[in-house]
Amino acid sequence: MLASAARRAVFRVPCPPLCSRAPASQPARFNLPLRPPVWQRTFTTSPPRLDNQPNTDPSSPSPLSPPKRTFRRTLGTALKYSLYLAGTTAVGAGVILSAIFLHDAFTYSDEHIEGVPVSPLALKPERGGPKNLPILQRYLGDFEDTINTQLVEKPHLVIVGGGWGAVGILKTLRPGDYHVTVISPETYTTFTPLLPSAAVGTVQVRSLVEPLRKIIARLRGHLLNARAVDLVMSERLLEVETACTNGHPQRIYVPYDKLVIAVGSTSSTHGVKGLEHCFQLKTVTDARMMRQRILDNFEAAALPTTSPEERRRLLSFVVCGGGPTGIEAAAEIFDLCQEDVMRYFPKICREEVSIHVIQSREHILNTYSEAIQNYAEGKFLHDRIDLIKPARVAAVYEDRVEYTTKDADGKTQTHAIPANFVLWSTGIAMNPFTERVSNLLPNQVHKKAIEVDAHLRVKGAPVGEVYAIGDASTIETSVVSYLLELVDEADRNKDGKIDFDEWEIMVHRIKHRVPMAESALGEVRELFNAYDKDSDDALTLNELAVLLQELGNKITALPATAQVASQQGKYLGRKLTKHAKQRDILAENGMLWGPGSDEAVTGPFRYLHLGSLAYIGNAAVFDLGKLSFMGGLVAMYAWRSVYWSEQVSSRTRALLMIDWIVRGVWGRDLSKL
Amino acid sequence: MLASAARRAVFRVPCPPLCSRAPASQPARFNLPLRPPVWQRTFTTSPPRLDNQPNTDPSSPSPLSPPKRTFRRTLGTALKYSLYLAGTTAVGAGVILSAIFLHDAFTYSDEHIEGVPVSPLALKPERGGPKNLPILQRYLGDFEDTINTQLVEKPHLVIVGGGWGAVGILKTLRPGDYHVTVISPETYTTFTPLLPSAAVGTVQVRSLVEPLRKIIARLRGHLLNARAVDLVMSERLLEVETACTNGHPQRIYVPYDKLVIAVGSTSSTHGVKGLEHCFQLKTVTDARMMRQRILDNFEAAALPTTSPEERRRLLSFVVCGGGPTGIEAAAEIFDLCQEDVMRYFPKICREEVSIHVIQSREHILNTYSEAIQNYAEGKFLHDRIDLIKPARVAAVYEDRVEYTTKDADGKTQTHAIPANFVLWSTGIAMNPFTERVSNLLPNQVHKKAIEVDAHLRVKGAPVGEVYAIGDASTIETSVVSYLLELVDEADRNKDGKIDFDEWEIMVHRIKHRVPMAESALGEVRELFNAYDKDSDDALTLNELAVLLQELGNKITALPATAQVASQQGKYLGRKLTKHAKQRDILAENGMLWGPGSDEAVTGPFRYLHLGSLAYIGNAAVFDLGKLSFMGGLVAMYAWRSVYWSEQVSSRTRALLMIDWIVRGVWGRDLSKL
Repeated sequence: MLASAARRAVFRVPCPPLCSRAPASQPARFNLPLRPPVWQRTFTTSPPRLDNQPNTDPSSPSPLSPPKRTFRRTLGTALKYSLYLAGTTAVGAGVILSAIFLHDAFTYSDEHIEGVPVSPLALKPERGGPKNLPILQRYLGDFEDTINTQLVEKPHLVIVGGGWGAVGILKTLRPGDYHVTVISPETYTTFTPLLPSAAVGTVQVRSLVEPLRKIIARLRGHLLNARAVDLVMSERLLEVETACTNGHPQRIYVPYDKLVIAVGSTSSTHGVKGLEHCFQLKTVTDARMMRQRILDNFEAAALPTTSPEERRRLLSFVVCGGGPTGIEAAAEIFDLCQEDVMRYFPKICREEVSIHVIQSREHILNTYSEAIQNYAEGKFLHDRIDLIKPARVAAVYEDRVEYTTKDADGKTQTHAIPANFVLWSTGIAMNPFTERVSNLLPNQVHKKAIEVDAHLRVKGAPVGEVYAIGDASTIETSVVSYLLELVDEADRNKDGKIDFDEWEIMVHRIKHRVPMAESALGEVRELFNAYDKDSDDALTLNELAVLLQELGNKITALPATAQVASQQGKYLGRKLTKHAKQRDILAENGMLWGPGSDEAVTGPFRYLHLGSLAYIGNAAVFDLGKLSFMGGLVAMYAWRSVYWSEQVSSRTRALLMIDWIVRGVWGRDLSKL
Repeated sequence: MLASAARRAVFRVPCPPLCSRAPASQPARFNLPLRPPVWQRTFTTSPPRLDNQPNTDPSSPSPLSPPKRTFRRTLGTALKYSLYLAGTTAVGAGVILSAIFLHDAFTYSDEHIEGVPVSPLALKPERGGPKNLPILQRYLGDFEDTINTQLVEKPHLVIVGGGWGAVGILKTLRPGDYHVTVISPETYTTFTPLLPSAAVGTVQVRSLVEPLRKIIARLRGHLLNARAVDLVMSERLLEVETACTNGHPQRIYVPYDKLVIAVGSTSSTHGVKGLEHCFQLKTVTDARMMRQRILDNFEAAALPTTSPEERRRLLSFVVCGGGPTGIEAAAEIFDLCQEDVMRYFPKICREEVSIHVIQSREHILNTYSEAIQNYAEGKFLHDRIDLIKPARVAAVYEDRVEYTTKDADGKTQTHAIPANFVLWSTGIAMNPFTERVSNLLPNQVHKKAIEVDAHLRVKGAPVGEVYAIGDASTIETSVVSYLLELVDEADRNKDGKIDFDEWEIMVHRIKHRVPMAESALGEVRELFNAYDKDSDDALTLNELAVLLQELGNKITALPATAQVASQQGKYLGRKLTKHAKQRDILAENGMLWGPGSDEAVTGPFRYLHLGSLAYIGNAAVFDLGKLSFMGGLVAMYAWRSVYWSEQVSSRTRALLMIDWIVRGVWGRDLSKL
């Protein structure tokens, strides 16, 4: 029922004349009560046609010649304009194509290059630091031209990671302010939200990646294809291990003036055994491996040596986790079966498919609004996608997934689903480098990420030198840790108590220090009264401590999403640019480094939630607060256009558009490749 | 010098006004003596401009108003028409885009599928044959609709392989004549001639492949993702091993009425050790691995931990073999360095690149004409690609290639090139299945392929049941083996001698049996006289045997190219279709099977050489006999358009065009992926 509503949504769009051709490729599937065709509506006096076809033969005689002539004239005019439009479009296309060819002809270069100046320090770095490793003081490209040579003297900004956060910085930095280095084990950045689509071939993995070298070219930056492993904060040295697959990995120190940790996260195991049999969906390699396994399962199921039980196992797809990634992956697998497998594999392969989503909460998409949860669950019910909830995955084996549910009596029951494809998409955990940094700093106690202050500076690290953004970081929500500073700032009469006027000042200061506390500080008076236990119209230090403690508990941490990482990256990029612009003024006031340096140029980071969206199989949901909506194809096109507009480059934008058109015209590519 | 000639070729094309924009992206690189700009040429009376810029400010006063007004009017008209053209083009593009969207909206299906009829024999095949394996008598899809059910009773045609030959058959067979099965370890067919381009990312690997399931859908055929391993000709059973990576490989018998072996070939090792350190370029997986290694080498070279010697080794690319594949790979690697590495990697990485081609003959492209060889060698000399010839590869090690040359005294000298990338592209050899078939038949003596007759039937196999095409096969060139049959047919007066009239009949019969002998049979009289040793104007059996023996030696075998395989596939597809059309007549005459059955419907296979072409780095060569040509970008575009027109589907054609445009606009994708 839901899907038929979804389909009708398409028909609401006014239907241009070309529409009449489209159903030809899918004959007689929709028997909607359409209005009569235009020639029947226009000429009400004409006798009803029995053959139900327009009379297009101009030579046939008719008793109703005057309206017919009008009709023919209209048709003639329409034909003339269509031909005219087609002609000019062809000419225009020809001009564009010629321009492309001409431009293309100038992209073939013939230049020879010789005698590039390279610093001896780049060819043979000196050793040093605690582990006596080579220290990368000069880069290979540092002196190849005058602009690069000038950059050598600028502060060295080192960004670890190449995801949403890192790209956010790289896109907002002004060229010429910093000597920029990106450390990434992958040489490209990935548009992660479309990975589920890439996993079934709706879009190509190559359309989701943009080489980091092209992004940093604007800043004349450097890319080291390496993995960060350790940090020596006292000497400002980052230890990295080279990530090239040929040759042997080597360790090296990269010196920095400012370091940004944007390494993302790994999947949380939640203590479940057998995750080595699961796929994850964090990189394009994951998507490519998933795609191969899915198509391999279908090829194996199409073999006559496969027993019926084995066929059912091969065609059973299990997704652990009912968040957006898991839901989208399940929906995309359904699409693949429905639109492509159906046409090219023996039909029995389609019939035996089963898709299962195991969710630990009561509902899927549990961070979205209730209406959206219901809509998505209804859609999945209609598509016969099996929702298992609430249930917990107990273990994953090579040939099955075991999960537990509680029955009405609260007893735990164990079930098993045979499967040859399991996707694990639940929660995040620290990756080894983040863990190492966290362990280096005694005041870092968070288990899932590095704690940063509202200026995104790593807590406990030398102030203004080390930042962390994205999934790798979490902004501290503890207000009580600022107790003494807040009292110091707010207690104007120095009586050791906070009266209401002073409380108002303090609220202002809290909002400045921890912007995320803003929503919890709504009713200033009520809050004050609630914690003023002795009703003396003033808060003692003890009362204040309780208030701030409970205030901190109310703040929810920012989610580990691309949106947060991207905003944090852009914020940091803009801050670093401002910092560079005001370098002289800051230096005059002795604030170039250290505490207060960041505060002098910009306020704390404020997150602006732009909404959440998810694709649920030829339909999509948008959680935008009051503007939330959900629906069929129209919502799906809207979902695509949002992601389309967020692309990192015009190249990926063009490729994505092409992928979507190619899927429409030729279907998904079924090559096991 | 050659490349500058190549570049000038572009300027010969009449230059539309848009041309003036194109050089903006490549400033001040070409200082050709261009004619003065159009505004200077038109108004010869105007004073020479010192600022060398057109006066585009319409409000500036001028003493030469009348020509200026004309100029402005012309400009206005041109602008009006341009805007007009742009407008209508936009409208046309909008209409096309709406049509695509509308079509797209109808490609999302909602259909449920249940109760597909499947034969129990397909779900649980019976066992049998010499090894008591499951015999695939019925397929999973055989009874899913009425058309498939009808096909079950048709002759079972089994095609082993999914390359050029197999696709040639699949494209020419008429639907409904055969129950078609394709056995292929890969689920797609590959456009092999563009693999060198894919190896550096000029085109995407995905643009070169088309799923076999989409190609066989027209014939309602079946694909088994498996590898042929053995053949039981007496029971018409093909033994295959399933190729799915998950699950365990299983063996099965596939029964056939007609079998086509089109499995291609492997690379010849020529007894060289260490080929496991080499890349080959036969599949898209090869191309993808090559691409990763090439980019990995550049990333490793860009690391400061890399010593200068190691950097030179990483950037040394060695190609063994100077045939078209090797030459194109070398040219494409050069292009990558020249057009993309130059822009995004430290310049030292470009400077240290060296590309080497080791060729065993005197010249590269030795099957092409001498003019082409010289042109290609000149181009490579200009591009500083190192041609080592004549030289033989002695051994390949993990870090270097060793080769031998002969000095002036004929002494063998050994040299070594440090390298981290070696491509092996020399000659072909039998793959295991071809070798097995060859060993099964005692009269198969050829070392590199299965010998077939002029009707492409495998020699020694039951006539009309087993065919072989493409690289896996070679057409017999021995005429003397037909000696007795030829004498029987030609010796009209049965005197045991062949006089000249009878010789003319025999020549006709030879041409029919071995069409490739045609060119060697040019001068009928001269040939007769030359071998008529006793000058009695008649050939004795001995004289004839010598003649036919030497005639056979003169015939050169067909090259192992895509062109030959494709023509053979199409020939066989047409023959099988004709055979099916005339099935009733053939059956009446008892010629449905066995000797004479093929001859009754069609003549022997005749190869029509359409020419050879090769890409040599922003230039291309065409060996077309008298029409041969070579040149720069214009030839390169011609080379592309030839390959473009030969695509197997409209999908790959569109994708290729897009790839070429994307390369022109955004350059190659440098993601190590």
